[in-house]
Amino acid sequence: MNKTTVVYPGSFDPFTEGHLNIIARAAGIFEKIIILVGHNSSKKTTLSTKERVSLIVEVTKDYTNVEVESFNGLLVDYIRKKGVRTILRGMRCHSDFEYELQMATANKLMDKEVETLFMVTESQFSHISSSLIKEIISLGGSAKGFVPAVVEKKLIEKLRPEEKRRK
Amino acid sequence: MNKTTVVYPGSFDPFTEGHLNIIARAAGIFEKIIILVGHNSSKKTTLSTKERVSLIVEVTKDYTNVEVESFNGLLVDYIRKKGVRTILRGMRCHSDFEYELQMATANKLMDKEVETLFMVTESQFSHISSSLIKEIISLGGSAKGFVPAVVEKKLIEKLRPEEKRRK
Amino acid sequence: MNKTTVVYPGSFDPFTEGHLNIIARAAGIFEKIIILVGHNSSKKTTLSTKERVSLIVEVTKDYTNVEVESFNGLLVDYIRKKGVRTILRGMRCHSDFEYELQMATANKLMDKEVETLFMVTESQFSHISSSLIKEIISLGGSAKGFVPAVVEKKLIEKLRPEEKRRK
Amino acid sequence: MNKTTVVYPGSFDPFTEGHLNIIARAAGIFEKIIILVGHNSSKKTTLSTKERVSLIVEVTKDYTNVEVESFNGLLVDYIRKKGVRTILRGMRCHSDFEYELQMATANKLMDKEVETLFMVTESQFSHISSSLIKEIISLGGSAKGFVPAVVEKKLIEKLRPEEKRRK
Amino acid sequence: MNKTTVVYPGSFDPFTEGHLNIIARAAGIFEKIIILVGHNSSKKTTLSTKERVSLIVEVTKDYTNVEVESFNGLLVDYIRKKGVRTILRGMRCHSDFEYELQMATANKLMDKEVETLFMVTESQFSHISSSLIKEIISLGGSAKGFVPAVVEKKLIEKLRPEEKRRK
Amino acid sequence: MNKTTVVYPGSFDPFTEGHLNIIARAAGIFEKIIILVGHNSSKKTTLSTKERVSLIVEVTKDYTNVEVESFNGLLVDYIRKKGVRTILRGMRCHSDFEYELQMATANKLMDKEVETLFMVTESQFSHISSSLIKEIISLGGSAKGFVPAVVEKKLIEKLRPEEKRRK
Repeated sequence: MNKTTVVYPGSFDPFTEGHLNIIARAAGIFEKIIILVGHNSSKKTTLSTKERVSLIVEVTKDYTNVEVESFNGLLVDYIRKKGVRTILRGMRCHSDFEYELQMATANKLMDKEVETLFMVTESQFSHISSSLIKEIISLGGSAKGFVPAVVEKKLIEKLRPEEKRRK
Repeated sequence: MNKTTVVYPGSFDPFTEGHLNIIARAAGIFEKIIILVGHNSSKKTTLSTKERVSLIVEVTKDYTNVEVESFNGLLVDYIRKKGVRTILRGMRCHSDFEYELQMATANKLMDKEVETLFMVTESQFSHISSSLIKEIISLGGSAKGFVPAVVEKKLIEKLRPEEKRRK
Repeated sequence: MNKTTVVYPGSFDPFTEGHLNIIARAAGIFEKIIILVGHNSSKKTTLSTKERVSLIVEVTKDYTNVEVESFNGLLVDYIRKKGVRTILRGMRCHSDFEYELQMATANKLMDKEVETLFMVTESQFSHISSSLIKEIISLGGSAKGFVPAVVEKKLIEKLRPEEKRRK
Repeated sequence: MNKTTVVYPGSFDPFTEGHLNIIARAAGIFEKIIILVGHNSSKKTTLSTKERVSLIVEVTKDYTNVEVESFNGLLVDYIRKKGVRTILRGMRCHSDFEYELQMATANKLMDKEVETLFMVTESQFSHISSSLIKEIISLGGSAKGFVPAVVEKKLIEKLRPEEKRRK
Repeated sequence: MNKTTVVYPGSFDPFTEGHLNIIARAAGIFEKIIILVGHNSSKKTTLSTKERVSLIVEVTKDYTNVEVESFNGLLVDYIRKKGVRTILRGMRCHSDFEYELQMATANKLMDKEVETLFMVTESQFSHISSSLIKEIISLGGSAKGFVPAVVEKKLIEKLRPEEKRRK
Repeated sequence: MNKTTVVYPGSFDPFTEGHLNIIARAAGIFEKIIILVGHNSSKKTTLSTKERVSLIVEVTKDYTNVEVESFNGLLVDYIRKKGVRTILRGMRCHSDFEYELQMATANKLMDKEVETLFMVTESQFSHISSSLIKEIISLGGSAKGFVPAVVEKKLIEKLRPEEKRRK
């Protein structure tokens, strides 16, 4: 078992500059990082699983020790199957703290070998939430500084369909 | 530079069952853990630096990848000198969150190569604070379950001097 | 008016080990506890009111001073009609705190005779939320330790209909 | 540019006694306050934009330096167009704090000239939320003390249609 | 064992209108309330134990089911000796929540029969802290509304000795 | 009475880049800002009142609508005497929130004409606390980015007396 492989799970709908900052920093600490895009058929997302995986692959292509995968099921099942034991999560704020605590504890209850490591989001990225970004874009604003350019372009396509039609 | 060595700094006055739980879990994830006992001449502690180091060495003796050191100065200076770049910290609760965020950010501002990883304290240890333990012992209570037995013995010696004299 | 009867209201969708722990402890303090299952026609629940009442009756059958009822309406109206004046609520974490504060204050504004007493959920149960349990079960995981066995069985029936069909 | 005009944005679904208290206090500090009723076609509200604007106009009619407008779009776009640069927001509790921090930061990222000023809701109004008020009214309770009388009347019309029919 | 006797412990340095509000409400719920004034020789207080007990006796004299005692030692030891098992505490805000959670858990670890019940401080009293009151009085301000009149008088004697001398 | 004069009170021991950022932003919103340096004989500060006033005067000299004063007493008394009614405060994080809420409420209780306006500290300054800065400097670190250069120089003189002697 490779001790220094970590799984970085999320819905990444969309993948933000904050997520990218975590990856950039983690890439220098861990041997391998698997970005795991969750797809849950009961939750509606703006971007499809395929679109999210494809955007993350493009945005993280300079990091040779980063892989992107998708899964549908319990995170602990994925982790056991892969033979890794460490989850990496970013934490932005107080409300994240409580949710993350709950998830880390639940995962540990389901498999006591699983550990979760947290990195704190750097302050300039700490006020970026996926839902806020989507609201700004759907109201016609710019998400520059919040998401990488390719992600913004894709979100505009999805959230402002009238613009696409006009072109 | 060894990517998987982490420094676990603290005042450890005293080292609790909560700290020990973090070490036990971290020992399975990282190649080497350096427990770094801070000694700051301007802060009064119940246990001397020497006593704290000695208790931690005893309590963690079964973990072959754990070392105990002490330092006096800025953590980032220690880290640079040692050639490590990763700090490990436990997080128990909301009020920890804000303090840890501040420290992690300050350390990053002083040396942008430094990263801090957090592990969440398991729930049964999450309500243990060093000051509460010392208050319980000084009022004649038992700290069993809060600190390892050797630590409790030493704290009783320090905080209930009258008992020692009576013996 | 019986001063030591308390009403323990909730949606209990589902009733968890955390709820059961509150009941077990409260049963030793108060003369009678009425577990009040709220049913609000505008909110969709996984378990019907009848199923929830029936599961709670089974799970709490060893406590002779515990009764289970359901209601549809304002809690203060129920309380006034019953002649009790004390509400019991569990509190797990910071985000509970704010919601509970709001509810306790609102109830007091509507009837200043009404008081709310809180018990803090024990740490091993503090990271259990109803929505997390349902997510784990729907993804094929085990909720052992989170909910009593009869509750888990019923949730599997509801949330994994394909399994039922296969049998 | 008028330095002392502030925009007080919100969905105001409904406008509460807490909002009114902020306006009463702000009216003594700022030269002009524009209450800006957001209408977002993708979010369903209980009261229509027209109803909300009309209720607020009536409730604030004694304040000569208060105006009521509605908008559909990004707040920073409205602000730029109007030539104001200061947003006023009320803050009730911890969970407000995080959301408000996120909004203030996002607005500043989109237009660095924009500033947000906060007033803390007075304690007797700090536990009033729009969703709680609507729940109380729909369950047949009284919202006296939570919302002005005309607002309560309108909400009863909307949330208890059967009463209206019976009359 | 009397199930409805509760112990209300604190340092009460000084006893505030917020404390009095908790007592007034609790007096209607519990059969007997013992206000327990902690005296810890290692902590310096503004008012002596004797002064605090005497002020609380005076201020609560209209409640026939309220007693005032003082203790020096572990709360769980007092509780066991008295044969009660329930602690009552007020909770004002988020930062109280974390401290109270820690104390309730520690007390339960030391004696698993001990339960802590919480009442939420009413909003008009929720911003009153003992240290703030003492700061206001020492700077020459009035603490009317924060503490009962007899308490304010005593605090002025203690914290503005020059006034006493001048008289 | 001038509606747009605000008082920005604090101990400013030391005045940080975070404080300066608030002043820079407030200078564009309000007609006049009085920075009020509190001096309380019972609280020990690293820098004297005179030193703090002098440093702030130097650091804010480019803002023509900013004045620096010092006071000893209750803030509401100063405000009444000056004929202003609005306090400005910065808010960095959750723990600030609770303290600020308490102070704003207490000031309002003592003089109901007094209002407090808050500005949220920008994220890059939100992890700067006066005590952390002093700890870093006393341990030999650099506070560049945390405090203006003249403030750092003065703190080094105060907190590393041995360096001064060696020169």
